[in-house]
Amino acid sequence: MTDATHDPALQSWVESANEPGCDFPVQNLPFAMFQPGPDAVPRAGVAIGDRILDVTSAFGIPSVLAVMRMPRAERVELRRRIGEFLVNRSPRAEDFLSPMAGARLLLPCEIGDYTDFYASIHHATNVGSMFRPDNPLLPNYKWLPVGYHGRASSVVASGTAVRRPYGQTLETPAGPPVFGPSRRLDYELELGAFLGPGNPLGEPIPIERAGGHLFGVCLLNDWSARDIQTWEYQPLGPFLAKNFATSISPWVVTMEALEPFRRLPEPRPAGDPEPLPHLRTAALDAYGITLEVWLRSARMAEPMRVSRGDFARMYWTLSQMVAQHASGGCNLRAGDLIGSGTVSGPLKENRGCLLEVAWRGAKPLELPTGETRRFLEDGDEVILRGWCEAPGFRRIGLGECRGVIAGQA
Amino acid sequence: MTDATHDPALQSWVESANEPGCDFPVQNLPFAMFQPGPDAVPRAGVAIGDRILDVTSAFGIPSVLAVMRMPRAERVELRRRIGEFLVNRSPRAEDFLSPMAGARLLLPCEIGDYTDFYASIHHATNVGSMFRPDNPLLPNYKWLPVGYHGRASSVVASGTAVRRPYGQTLETPAGPPVFGPSRRLDYELELGAFLGPGNPLGEPIPIERAGGHLFGVCLLNDWSARDIQTWEYQPLGPFLAKNFATSISPWVVTMEALEPFRRLPEPRPAGDPEPLPHLRTAALDAYGITLEVWLRSARMAEPMRVSRGDFARMYWTLSQMVAQHASGGCNLRAGDLIGSGTVSGPLKENRGCLLEVAWRGAKPLELPTGETRRFLEDGDEVILRGWCEAPGFRRIGLGECRGVIAGQA
Repeated sequence: MTDATHDPALQSWVESANEPGCDFPVQNLPFAMFQPGPDAVPRAGVAIGDRILDVTSAFGIPSVLAVMRMPRAERVELRRRIGEFLVNRSPRAEDFLSPMAGARLLLPCEIGDYTDFYASIHHATNVGSMFRPDNPLLPNYKWLPVGYHGRASSVVASGTAVRRPYGQTLETPAGPPVFGPSRRLDYELELGAFLGPGNPLGEPIPIERAGGHLFGVCLLNDWSARDIQTWEYQPLGPFLAKNFATSISPWVVTMEALEPFRRLPEPRPAGDPEPLPHLRTAALDAYGITLEVWLRSARMAEPMRVSRGDFARMYWTLSQMVAQHASGGCNLRAGDLIGSGTVSGPLKENRGCLLEVAWRGAKPLELPTGETRRFLEDGDEVILRGWCEAPGFRRIGLGECRGVIAGQA
Repeated sequence: MTDATHDPALQSWVESANEPGCDFPVQNLPFAMFQPGPDAVPRAGVAIGDRILDVTSAFGIPSVLAVMRMPRAERVELRRRIGEFLVNRSPRAEDFLSPMAGARLLLPCEIGDYTDFYASIHHATNVGSMFRPDNPLLPNYKWLPVGYHGRASSVVASGTAVRRPYGQTLETPAGPPVFGPSRRLDYELELGAFLGPGNPLGEPIPIERAGGHLFGVCLLNDWSARDIQTWEYQPLGPFLAKNFATSISPWVVTMEALEPFRRLPEPRPAGDPEPLPHLRTAALDAYGITLEVWLRSARMAEPMRVSRGDFARMYWTLSQMVAQHASGGCNLRAGDLIGSGTVSGPLKENRGCLLEVAWRGAKPLELPTGETRRFLEDGDEVILRGWCEAPGFRRIGLGECRGVIAGQA
């Protein structure tokens, strides 16, 4: 349900927030942890235009994790108060603002557990057809949101350089394996979702209440070493191919801010099974979020857009991922991070990783410099962007998630 | 290298520590977090006989995590001081002891990341032959220690009841899947290893230094729902089949205490490949630790031993697991937990999970009550035990890891 905080006529006294195309108008109010200066103590902030509102100083909120832990009603009330603060200027209100340009944006919290799903049927089918030509989409795919546990320690903030990993790979199908730098380094465009209040161990979360356990979303780049993955992933799944780095955008856009962009999930294609009861819902559980990948090689002055997709077209929704995750009794906790899996769509322009874009190297991507890319090269920068638009509402954005591939030392 | 703290002649003034067969003589000194009474603040303790030495009060050590974070030399010195305290009785020394029987033993720390390996070739071959009869041992197995990320939030202390998980399973090969309580619930006997000082992101740990990043070991029961696992695990690995609970023993036996039980790993069978250089070592990297599984149904007065194995016979060592884990740049941190994978050996009596013992249900285990077990039933208690013995040294033990299967509410 939208409320007064979504009124598109609302304007902030922070004027940069009112400019068309601004990711952070007063209807958004995403949270991040930040340092206003190099040695400052980290604090919680809310983005407003090109400024950061210090909500630790202004509202006594110690951290973003503290907001994640709040019951939803309390979070909604905090949003109302912050919105009011930024709409109705009070004396000295500006003292709580600092320029985003000079701040260091950190991870929003220490990540508890990180779980990565695989919720785009287009991505699963494309990649499956490369790794398992006879059997691209496995029998379980349409029955449950496939997911696996990822590495929390190597989730890094946007802007952190990504070291090209070493690993074991097969250079020829017959082997033997060799150990060296990955030669098939890739990005994956994903939506990240942070958990709000969790569930006790052994007590599943019913699908109807799953959305209430979500705190907000960010952009997530699930960097992947395809050559390491191919060799290592059977039978227990990806490990070193993924755990060298996962980048996320600093601003977490709350589920409250996303309310105007909720939709009914698309009907499943004819012949696909109805989800079992613990995953079945008639709620507005899809979110219309446009997600883009931009790439800039070291020789390019400006990045080029490589793909664009719509998060609402995922086969499984965030609520279904949460309900599935807890269905066996696993406890989720505030500060846990979920990755959606690569967001790919039905069209070529919707392909969310380079493996799909360049079709395993068979159709290299051409850059405006004349360079080509089968996989990422040292010096390449990958930029993820995302935003939401809907008739009658103010556009809001997720900001950016950036990472440059650094070579090995 | 053993030192004076390993002298088998050393006796403690805590007399129960000197009894033959005691797990916790003064040569052991494992760490746990504990509450001396129901509402007491948790503190760090060291086991000595049937008592706990409060090392928070006696030595100002705030937590076990603080010890995990210490550089190895500092930890060695702490061990020396604690040993001295328990050998040479000082006035009022007893004030720092409390009975283990009345204490609540907790998790040793908040688990950072939990990673589970698959390092017994006997287990991998046995289980592989059930899930993939044509292809039991995958081509990567002898080249790298296969591992995957597990769930940290659901690691629980010994004694926590384990709720039988619900999940999707196939009742007939053609499906469709159904959602209900797991009917193939299993234990897995593993050794757990806690990380000490970690490595920065992007900086691998050379195999020669890998052992220095280990803090200590415990018993670990990787509870597994085989029917859920069979349906969900392709292509990204086990997820809900494992993340409903993982039990660990409370006492962490340090690598220092294990020094007398180090051995050269067994030579690899003829024809097996030599590990690649980043996993190759001539060090005494195997540990002789006897590990046992005991089972007690609700109708049994006493548990029966189901299996016994030797950790030194694993195909991959803990050092190789650590070196492999960090080889792509993944950062390990103090408080991270590694599971070894099910410890099975070449003989029937060495099989470390019920799936292997009862051979996927084909050869049910017979209990002294006349009951049989294909998989675990509600009310069954699984008890893991472990200890080390070597000529010329005092036996030390890991204590116990217990868990009872609770039905669904």
